[in-house]
Amino acid sequence: MNELNLRIPGPIPVAEDVLEAMASPMINHRGPQFEELLYRVTDRIKQVFETDGDVYILTASGTGAMEAAVVNTLSPGDKVLNLSIGFFGDRFGEIARIYGAEVTDLSFPWGQAVDTDAVRDALRSAPDIQAVLVTHNETSTGVSNDLEAIAGVVKGEFDKLLLVDGISSVCSIPLQTDAWGCDVVATASQKGWMLPPGLAFVSFSSRAWEAYDRAAMPKYYLDVGQYRKYYQKGQPPYTPGLSAFFALDLALEKIAEEGLGALFERHKTIAQMTRDGIKALGLQLFPDESVASNTVTAVNVPLGMSGAALLSAMRERGVVLGGGQGPVEGKIFRIGHMGRVEPSEIQEVMDALEDALPSLAS
Amino acid sequence: MNELNLRIPGPIPVAEDVLEAMASPMINHRGPQFEELLYRVTDRIKQVFETDGDVYILTASGTGAMEAAVVNTLSPGDKVLNLSIGFFGDRFGEIARIYGAEVTDLSFPWGQAVDTDAVRDALRSAPDIQAVLVTHNETSTGVSNDLEAIAGVVKGEFDKLLLVDGISSVCSIPLQTDAWGCDVVATASQKGWMLPPGLAFVSFSSRAWEAYDRAAMPKYYLDVGQYRKYYQKGQPPYTPGLSAFFALDLALEKIAEEGLGALFERHKTIAQMTRDGIKALGLQLFPDESVASNTVTAVNVPLGMSGAALLSAMRERGVVLGGGQGPVEGKIFRIGHMGRVEPSEIQEVMDALEDALPSLAS
Repeated sequence: MNELNLRIPGPIPVAEDVLEAMASPMINHRGPQFEELLYRVTDRIKQVFETDGDVYILTASGTGAMEAAVVNTLSPGDKVLNLSIGFFGDRFGEIARIYGAEVTDLSFPWGQAVDTDAVRDALRSAPDIQAVLVTHNETSTGVSNDLEAIAGVVKGEFDKLLLVDGISSVCSIPLQTDAWGCDVVATASQKGWMLPPGLAFVSFSSRAWEAYDRAAMPKYYLDVGQYRKYYQKGQPPYTPGLSAFFALDLALEKIAEEGLGALFERHKTIAQMTRDGIKALGLQLFPDESVASNTVTAVNVPLGMSGAALLSAMRERGVVLGGGQGPVEGKIFRIGHMGRVEPSEIQEVMDALEDALPSLAS
Repeated sequence: MNELNLRIPGPIPVAEDVLEAMASPMINHRGPQFEELLYRVTDRIKQVFETDGDVYILTASGTGAMEAAVVNTLSPGDKVLNLSIGFFGDRFGEIARIYGAEVTDLSFPWGQAVDTDAVRDALRSAPDIQAVLVTHNETSTGVSNDLEAIAGVVKGEFDKLLLVDGISSVCSIPLQTDAWGCDVVATASQKGWMLPPGLAFVSFSSRAWEAYDRAAMPKYYLDVGQYRKYYQKGQPPYTPGLSAFFALDLALEKIAEEGLGALFERHKTIAQMTRDGIKALGLQLFPDESVASNTVTAVNVPLGMSGAALLSAMRERGVVLGGGQGPVEGKIFRIGHMGRVEPSEIQEVMDALEDALPSLAS
């Protein structure tokens, strides 16, 4: 199969040796080999999260980890402020709502970031709010929130429980779980971790554990209390996606070798190259450039052009881009640049766009 | 790494070519390649389930699929009869209880099967029961229930909703979803499907969909309604464990080539060989032999012997067995024989037992 240049915002291309690790033979998930593996990868994941708290590995997509964040810390009737700047922000609030939380949405126009002052006002005017939900990097709009500043308000000024969707941010852009005071951070393997999808990681602060003890939302598969109990025996509560654990072990070794600082810098550089390339083609970024994400770049489909036609013209040229979700379906396209992306791969996207665009203009 | 003879009741050893498929490069889970793959594997899974109803593929362990069975069909306060013959039967009831169902347990001693007459009596004396939960094959005790007979009572005589844990049965021993009237059947990839863990499959009858419309238990990640909606577009609702999908595609091709009849026959033969071998060693089967499972054999640890010592003596001899769970921890050991098991692999277990046992007798 002729391999395509997969430039969606996850799953991302995975290195050959990490893919090969996916083909490792099965082991007993309740035996000594797995115990060693579980402890080793968990310790390394904590380093990436920059946390001394707990981190658990779920066999689920990132959405499962978002649900774990909610159901393990909240009760029906709890008052929650949901900061949404797009599709996944809306999803976070929706999960809390479905499980019976009283969710107040503080939504910002798609393409913009959370306004920290508005968060302060909202928390001031509703002192009974117990928890704040926020997306660190909104994959649907290509916008990064200033999580440090938001946490400064939510934790520093109001001392609320802070639940973070870090799915397309952790291991790509800086997120200091402990230093910023994030109580729960959810992320998933197919993003900056440079792995296939199938695993999700969720961190838990001591404050989150206090919330857990009161949390009355029902849960079983996503109950982190079960994960904590079995972790003490070196086991998972339920049979995990073993193959992805083997790959995770190798990917984390590579991440440790590179170092987080270099990894973040690399994402910044490649994102800037992407935005510069887009502008050089006369295309328009969808978000305000000042808040544009370093893991995914969202671009307006030129007026009068079909988004679907653009995606398929790019696919014919060997480049797979992401489309728009929800209200921006057909109106934007997205270029993923999480993980190890070579400048030549971004150049290929630009070349293909340059080639495709004239034929698409009506 | 010197490979061990992995004889736990899942994860099971996976064929080399299926493992290699796990190492396939990533694709867009919202693109045309995945759509084709999704439809092809779903159609083939339905053939194994022997159903014309719906089947969805979750990225989760089997426990996630059990939870999906419960939360998508029931409401808090619903009256449920849980037929338990072991650890996983208890888990099924526990999930329903946590989500607010009023669960009546009809439990049978570990090592025995469900008594169909007792089910009839229970349903007759509590006409307000809406659903029955049952384990087809209890992995913890090595017992298979006569699901056809149970379904005959639950559906044929009382017309209740029937939710089945088929985790260690589907694709190993006969389970005719439609013909027997099973409304939801849950299973997982690391069992008879001969795949690594990471995916779970759940079938849904039209009766189950009627129940879905009334079901008020909260759910998001495991909401099959989302799976149904996205399936129509050829997509998963959330990013799936892609690697296991590639492997599933190949595994299903191999299953179709062999044919279900031959596959069931093979399991029967290898199970009989295992039981005969155990008895020839002077060991005692844990369950009543008349209801012993064809996917896992549970054996009593000889009196005065340490179960843990037995497992580690076997491991030193290259054979990984399963221990006992819950109340039989240390008291039984289990030999898994799901998937493609060669007689020589079972012989190896017997030889290792013969070698190990004398040194363990106190």
